[in-house]
Amino acid sequence: MSSERFQKGMDKLKELTIADPNSPTGHMEIGESFKDIAPDLTRLVVEFAFGDIYARPGLDNKQKVLATISALVAQGTPQIGMHVVTGLNVGLSADEIAACLVHLIPYVGFPRVLTAMQVAQEVFAEQGVAITFNPDADES
Amino acid sequence: MSSERFQKGMDKLKELTIADPNSPTGHMEIGESFKDIAPDLTRLVVEFAFGDIYARPGLDNKQKVLATISALVAQGTPQIGMHVVTGLNVGLSADEIAACLVHLIPYVGFPRVLTAMQVAQEVFAEQGVAITFNPDADES
Amino acid sequence: MSSERFQKGMDKLKELTIADPNSPTGHMEIGESFKDIAPDLTRLVVEFAFGDIYARPGLDNKQKVLATISALVAQGTPQIGMHVVTGLNVGLSADEIAACLVHLIPYVGFPRVLTAMQVAQEVFAEQGVAITFNPDADES
Amino acid sequence: MSSERFQKGMDKLKELTIADPNSPTGHMEIGESFKDIAPDLTRLVVEFAFGDIYARPGLDNKQKVLATISALVAQGTPQIGMHVVTGLNVGLSADEIAACLVHLIPYVGFPRVLTAMQVAQEVFAEQGVAITFNPDADES
Amino acid sequence: MSSERFQKGMDKLKELTIADPNSPTGHMEIGESFKDIAPDLTRLVVEFAFGDIYARPGLDNKQKVLATISALVAQGTPQIGMHVVTGLNVGLSADEIAACLVHLIPYVGFPRVLTAMQVAQEVFAEQGVAITFNPDADES
Amino acid sequence: MSSERFQKGMDKLKELTIADPNSPTGHMEIGESFKDIAPDLTRLVVEFAFGDIYARPGLDNKQKVLATISALVAQGTPQIGMHVVTGLNVGLSADEIAACLVHLIPYVGFPRVLTAMQVAQEVFAEQGVAITFNPDADES
Repeated sequence: MSSERFQKGMDKLKELTIADPNSPTGHMEIGESFKDIAPDLTRLVVEFAFGDIYARPGLDNKQKVLATISALVAQGTPQIGMHVVTGLNVGLSADEIAACLVHLIPYVGFPRVLTAMQVAQEVFAEQGVAITFNPDADES
Repeated sequence: MSSERFQKGMDKLKELTIADPNSPTGHMEIGESFKDIAPDLTRLVVEFAFGDIYARPGLDNKQKVLATISALVAQGTPQIGMHVVTGLNVGLSADEIAACLVHLIPYVGFPRVLTAMQVAQEVFAEQGVAITFNPDADES
Repeated sequence: MSSERFQKGMDKLKELTIADPNSPTGHMEIGESFKDIAPDLTRLVVEFAFGDIYARPGLDNKQKVLATISALVAQGTPQIGMHVVTGLNVGLSADEIAACLVHLIPYVGFPRVLTAMQVAQEVFAEQGVAITFNPDADES
Repeated sequence: MSSERFQKGMDKLKELTIADPNSPTGHMEIGESFKDIAPDLTRLVVEFAFGDIYARPGLDNKQKVLATISALVAQGTPQIGMHVVTGLNVGLSADEIAACLVHLIPYVGFPRVLTAMQVAQEVFAEQGVAITFNPDADES
Repeated sequence: MSSERFQKGMDKLKELTIADPNSPTGHMEIGESFKDIAPDLTRLVVEFAFGDIYARPGLDNKQKVLATISALVAQGTPQIGMHVVTGLNVGLSADEIAACLVHLIPYVGFPRVLTAMQVAQEVFAEQGVAITFNPDADES
Repeated sequence: MSSERFQKGMDKLKELTIADPNSPTGHMEIGESFKDIAPDLTRLVVEFAFGDIYARPGLDNKQKVLATISALVAQGTPQIGMHVVTGLNVGLSADEIAACLVHLIPYVGFPRVLTAMQVAQEVFAEQGVAITFNPDADES
């Protein structure tokens, strides 16, 4: 019986999300929309990705989200938006998320970063957050 | 004239590396070994990757190395070892680097992570560092 | 003269597709829509991908479609829908296709699999098929 | 407590491997060699990759290995050899494994397939198996 | 001070683009739309991608665009359209661009090439250009 | 019967390679070493990759090799060395090949390019060729 791991995963999910009165898991896609193709996907995501991995000690939540975003930018994966929201929820600033994307340019190239920036830009607008620093202005 | 950017990049490089008496840039591969195929590569790496990007404000060095490592794990890139050394130099613990690799499993899959772990393991042995925590022991 | 290979490829295509009265090749994209950019693409696809490769002995059609789908999930390729239709045509059940996607999670990560699930879900709805088993229910 | 999932994973592992008198898990890499960098990796691999996923109903073992190999060929992942051994253990013939690699050429290109063929070739030699059919001879 | 590199990059950009009365940089995406997430992105793109790299001697513009397009096809990157326009601007014919895409099939597989063809097809239609040769007709 | 395509492919192969007295196909890997795992691979490579694609009009040989190299750099594929030899054979200079690798940095990132440079460096040394220009010296 895996209910302990499921509970551990759900606790981590609540910690990562801002409570949404209509949903027990806030903004996170945890497989509910795939019930008809993989009925156990919610359980697998909550137990493994959140219970086993996200709840594992060793890194704080801000580090975990930065690592996740960086890996998805490198993959060119479309699901990055959800993780940008999580980043803001756990205390990463818009400045840190934006700086992370720019930092990856030498490693993954401009195209992958521009794709990610477009998604982050939309999330920032939806969430009403904005960057506050300007590297070029700071230099002058 | 780009000497200012070059100097900025070299300053960042020194900050990221432990001084090696035989080399101004410590352990970092900055293109010296490619002089015969791209004589300007050292300049491009120092000016752009270090002067423009690594020296850019917005993230601290530990965050920058975690982001770099995460992107390279996702790519399956062999150059990850150099960045693990840099991580240790800027203050990431072996625990944090190891935890970052485990954290990426749900996003990039086991094979990419196992490849990276093998490289990190070798670097940890060479650098005489080791992880100190055991998630399973912590749970008991 | 390559007409023999073209015929062999067309025969294989007919075997893989449900006859569509408006098209000799059913649902398969075989390059017809690229006539203006690569007039020989239909020939290359039919002769090589179907005549040389799909008609090659060694695996049955169900195995070939599973292998194709698995490779495209790993690539993050958008063309997976067409191959899900082919899979249903050659006798793979919706259960087998869905189980294949879940099986790939540890190897390619959740994001690539979720992207593929969304496409498969749409194809299942269009084709009027559904999965019949529930691993969690089976366990109880 | 996850001992039930661990046992389920170990049972699946035994089913997939030929018993090796020196090891409870035969040829499979299940993270033992990463004890010093991720002490819980063996548990995560056995519980999740084998207990949750490989033991999940919906596909037979031969289909699961074909799907795994196909995904790793597409990724260009070096760990393919271990899965070729597993394939032979669960009853895939050398002919089927070799045919799977050739089948992937139109989807992932020649270079990825040639890389995988080199690994499969070495495994076939070590395991003393060989292909028995020749498509060109069969045609004549 | 980097104004010399910026000017060098802008000069290269003008050479690569057809002057658009409403924009100093024609059709090229040089980061203007990312001002709110990375205010220095335009500078980084113009200075590095155009000033340092595109203006570097060793290849002519037509070779540089062919190399860029080929790399992006292999990556499965959506930004290929902009580079197809640049290719036409620097003198690549529609025939050469289309032939480049077909040439990549054995190396990256059909799916990546078909994705790129769809984008190139749209750009050719927008720009009012068309291919003039037909390999199959040429053979007869 | 496909002997016409096979002959066309072999003719193209001879054009691309410097005759090696011990081999009809010079330095090119055309599947001979995979006879025991895929007896028809030589035929598939010669007929499709060389007969259908490399012999297709629309690009000259130098353009075709540049496109191939660029795609393989983006993939991180190890087989790039063989294509660097082909490039030298069809008239690309070491300067052009080296410049192509540097040109790809903004699109695929430094790591993929450094991996390719190492391979190209070894091929240049084996073939006794060297670059003749130095962008930094040219600027002064």
